[in-house]
Amino acid sequence: MPRVVFLPANVTVEVPEEETILRAAMRAGLHINASCGGAGVCGKCRVFVEEGSVEGEALPEGGYKACTLHPKSDVVIRIPVESEVDRRALLRPLRRAAASWLEARGPHAFPHDPLVEKVFLELEPPSLENNLADLPRLEMALQAAKGLEKLNVDWKLLKSLPHILREKGFRVTAGLLEDRLLRIEAGDTSERLLGMAIDVGTTTVCVELLDLRQNRVLAETSDYNPQISYGEDVISRIEFARRGDGLQILHEKIVDCLRRLTREVCDKQGIDPEEILLYSVAGNTVMSHFLLELEPRFLRETPYVPVTTKFPFIPAEELGLPGKGAVVHLAPCVASYVGGDITSGVVATGLAREEPLTLFIDIGTNGEIVVGNKDFLACAACSAGPAFEGGGIKHGMRATTGAIEAVHIDPHTLEPMIITIGNKKPKGICGSGIISLLANLFIEGIIDQSGKYRRDIEHPRLREGRDGWEYVLVWAKDSATGEDIVFTEADIDNLIRAKGAMFSGYQTLLESVGLEIGALERVILAGNFGSFLDLEQAIIIGLLPDLPRERFYFIGNSSLMGARLAAGSKEAQKEMERVAGMMTHFELSAHPRYMDYYVSALFLPHTEIDLFPSVKKLLEEHAASS
Amino acid sequence: MPRVVFLPANVTVEVPEEETILRAAMRAGLHINASCGGAGVCGKCRVFVEEGSVEGEALPEGGYKACTLHPKSDVVIRIPVESEVDRRALLRPLRRAAASWLEARGPHAFPHDPLVEKVFLELEPPSLENNLADLPRLEMALQAAKGLEKLNVDWKLLKSLPHILREKGFRVTAGLLEDRLLRIEAGDTSERLLGMAIDVGTTTVCVELLDLRQNRVLAETSDYNPQISYGEDVISRIEFARRGDGLQILHEKIVDCLRRLTREVCDKQGIDPEEILLYSVAGNTVMSHFLLELEPRFLRETPYVPVTTKFPFIPAEELGLPGKGAVVHLAPCVASYVGGDITSGVVATGLAREEPLTLFIDIGTNGEIVVGNKDFLACAACSAGPAFEGGGIKHGMRATTGAIEAVHIDPHTLEPMIITIGNKKPKGICGSGIISLLANLFIEGIIDQSGKYRRDIEHPRLREGRDGWEYVLVWAKDSATGEDIVFTEADIDNLIRAKGAMFSGYQTLLESVGLEIGALERVILAGNFGSFLDLEQAIIIGLLPDLPRERFYFIGNSSLMGARLAAGSKEAQKEMERVAGMMTHFELSAHPRYMDYYVSALFLPHTEIDLFPSVKKLLEEHAASS
Repeated sequence: MPRVVFLPANVTVEVPEEETILRAAMRAGLHINASCGGAGVCGKCRVFVEEGSVEGEALPEGGYKACTLHPKSDVVIRIPVESEVDRRALLRPLRRAAASWLEARGPHAFPHDPLVEKVFLELEPPSLENNLADLPRLEMALQAAKGLEKLNVDWKLLKSLPHILREKGFRVTAGLLEDRLLRIEAGDTSERLLGMAIDVGTTTVCVELLDLRQNRVLAETSDYNPQISYGEDVISRIEFARRGDGLQILHEKIVDCLRRLTREVCDKQGIDPEEILLYSVAGNTVMSHFLLELEPRFLRETPYVPVTTKFPFIPAEELGLPGKGAVVHLAPCVASYVGGDITSGVVATGLAREEPLTLFIDIGTNGEIVVGNKDFLACAACSAGPAFEGGGIKHGMRATTGAIEAVHIDPHTLEPMIITIGNKKPKGICGSGIISLLANLFIEGIIDQSGKYRRDIEHPRLREGRDGWEYVLVWAKDSATGEDIVFTEADIDNLIRAKGAMFSGYQTLLESVGLEIGALERVILAGNFGSFLDLEQAIIIGLLPDLPRERFYFIGNSSLMGARLAAGSKEAQKEMERVAGMMTHFELSAHPRYMDYYVSALFLPHTEIDLFPSVKKLLEEHAASS
Repeated sequence: MPRVVFLPANVTVEVPEEETILRAAMRAGLHINASCGGAGVCGKCRVFVEEGSVEGEALPEGGYKACTLHPKSDVVIRIPVESEVDRRALLRPLRRAAASWLEARGPHAFPHDPLVEKVFLELEPPSLENNLADLPRLEMALQAAKGLEKLNVDWKLLKSLPHILREKGFRVTAGLLEDRLLRIEAGDTSERLLGMAIDVGTTTVCVELLDLRQNRVLAETSDYNPQISYGEDVISRIEFARRGDGLQILHEKIVDCLRRLTREVCDKQGIDPEEILLYSVAGNTVMSHFLLELEPRFLRETPYVPVTTKFPFIPAEELGLPGKGAVVHLAPCVASYVGGDITSGVVATGLAREEPLTLFIDIGTNGEIVVGNKDFLACAACSAGPAFEGGGIKHGMRATTGAIEAVHIDPHTLEPMIITIGNKKPKGICGSGIISLLANLFIEGIIDQSGKYRRDIEHPRLREGRDGWEYVLVWAKDSATGEDIVFTEADIDNLIRAKGAMFSGYQTLLESVGLEIGALERVILAGNFGSFLDLEQAIIIGLLPDLPRERFYFIGNSSLMGARLAAGSKEAQKEMERVAGMMTHFELSAHPRYMDYYVSALFLPHTEIDLFPSVKKLLEEHAASS
């Protein structure tokens, strides 16, 4: 990997070829002006290449646009004076994100023993000496091969049995789910054992086509959950489901989507989707209800009762998914707002089989949190609201092309540098950008601890707008929308409430099991959000606890990972059930001290600053240097 | 029951009011002329009432038509001289049929413990303290009530669960098949537990609507199997099934029929068929295959392999039968030609739980035979052919209205007296009539031991017809068809082969298990045919073994009976599986001595007359008296 030395700061970072110099500089905490968000339009991000080979767009006046520049070898880059260096940023560790759990540990290792299996059998052809009927003949062979005492066969399969047995001289392959015969095929097809792992998220649906014999992912794809058209969050969708045939519509939309994505990954591999024998699905409780067309209304009415938290295996055909005889497994849920995605994620980490006390966090509309180890598991849902997904934020948006995903504010000029997803002109701010912006505003003293803009600062970007005080992050001329992109005090208020809900959630849950934050040996951040989160900034605003940074890991889509593990290992599937059964669910709002904790968390980073010693120190340093 | 004294023979019989004097006389072995078959047309059956009260049609010349006459009190009847008394008939025991197994023993007593059950549950309504999901809440209640460790619920039921639970405040009734939840109903419906017992015969379908809670039959009905239009016997239907959508047609026909009959019995009782929770069906292997649309061709191709001999519980809805969540149970079969009707019948008798060595016989197209007791069971199918059902007999017919069901030949005049079903003009001869006729012809010396008409007898009814020698049973003027009803030597030949197949079957099967006929402690005749069979006559022709008459029983539709028992008792259903598993099936034709036995049985009653000592004695007495 090329090494890039940035001058004059003399900071060295490794930069993969696909990363731009702009992004690498940002990661290194260096300030390069880029008001267009890296879209290659404004030309303000000029840098000079002093040594090495690069690829990128040169500027007529000399230098390159950093937002287009990629290293082709080790290079030395000089950032010109017009983009003044933020020296204090150098004090920050270069590694801003948490460590990757997958790089450090990988998914928990379960024995390879797929949930469904295929067994090749050579039956003795019938004769007058042995004219046992077809089904008992098959049963006897399975008993000999697998020790199966009984075999469950449905009517449809029974009808096809005599023909398939005779197609290749009583040489057949049985597809099984435990003692349930799912499929019977002529000849030896035991090498082809295909499954799907699926994560049904409120926003995104991710699927993987699995070769369960080889235990590997053949293809993957994802798309937005088409239910978004009927409500951005689970609550609005539950409301939609209550009207007319709303539930049926939501159900059909997600099934359509799964069918389409399944076809897509199969097409990539030239595989007939009818070959699929298993769907291993994980989703939150509401998504699981929609997928199965289960009444969701009691999920949101007190006392918050799901139709079920564990699911029978459902024939894929009944659900409308391809795969002859295939079955659908859903990860078990724990409660209305702690679902199969969390169970699945916990299984993927293996935390419930290990000693270290671990906090597992999935930040989304509902921040689900789990704390525990091999001896116990406690969980809760924090009503964080959708702020971290851009919901309730004036110019908030989901993490798609054109979303501002990172912000750096120059401490001297108070001018922002932004990076957008896809390096397009900015349309709005997504979750990681919002956290980044909030942390910057706070650290640079533009807002105070209660999240109010300092009225004593005079700056063109700080103004009283229609919705109260705001900071102009992007001027209309540089935005994709042709409007100013601003960040209001109301936005900040929403964010503080959201992070407050999360933090008081950790505190309450830990107290419920008699522990304190300091006891946490590991913190695992699940979901996409966790992967893009700037760890320091998340701690600065008080979203994550102020623990030694090496205790933090991001794991990505652990829900999908767990679904994949359950497909590939009976033990993993059993572990899902064990984990779901082991989790004690706490209703945070029922805890006597929850409200106190929550109110105390409505400060940056927290009313009790001693809970955040490293932030306290940083603020002190800042105060000293300014 | 009125007692009727017949003069001048001075024979007394008990006569139920619904029986005619003609029939009672016949039963008593007395000869009354009745050439119209009891249709009340010919007026030849005149009798005089000397004492007591009667109801019937008086004749203008005095006396009554015996075929219309019913006793209303104890009566004395004089049979006039023009209908000469068959004195030798008086030597015969009055009881001509075998004893009724049901009167003597009843169906085997299994504990009342229906295969499906309903459990009323009062769940604790959810609260914030206990907000367990609906399904696990139900499971816990079932575990408490029934000790159920797990519950199998299908998707459809899961969808309806939250609404039904809340309809009557979490008071629900669960319909169960072991650990499988079939249905859930609001409130307490546990008193209503309805099922159907069904016997699917090749010719007739019999159904009973069962109150499984009270363990009683609420209504019953029957009809011809509509598959008859596609073939009278199983072989021709298997052939039909092989062409185009033949199998589907046969399947749909029988399902239609079951649906219609189910509606019919439910309507009788004002019951919604959707209330039915269980269908307990017994049928032979071929009928079971047709009902489930299973490929029948391998049943009749060597080595005669059924698709299956045991059947999964099938959702009634899939099969197209009414009953919300209902399941269909089929009695397990043993081999291609020993089916669930036999298993069911054996269970109904209880013979496999008792000490006495018993022969169970079902005479039909295939005569199925079972021999055994609590220690072993052996079975076989005899290729008797359809002769006993009237098949292959020139004027043979099924036992319906107008069929001659009993014959008595006057030893002096060689004139026949006949009785038809429904007392209508005769159309043809059914099975019991055929046996009766054959036995009479033999005993009166009209045919010899090889079944040939004695050429030395000159009688208007004995003649050489188009099809060889024949006996005219009914003259054209007295028949419903306007043609002579005759009985040919070819007919006799068919009958001898049929009874020979049965008898050599008993011999071979018994030899296979190292036993002799004399060892049989009981002989149970299953099926309608057995109930109408004249025991003496069946022994005379060598269809039944010559054992002490008190060892014989008829049981009627034991297939239906077993189906009813299995519905009402888990133990009976388990016994079906045990019996099917315990039965050793013998292919008679594979036995080295079968052919010898068969050939020896092609005589009346048998080549070895010492096998039939009572017949030998009867023949000797006859010879002495004539």
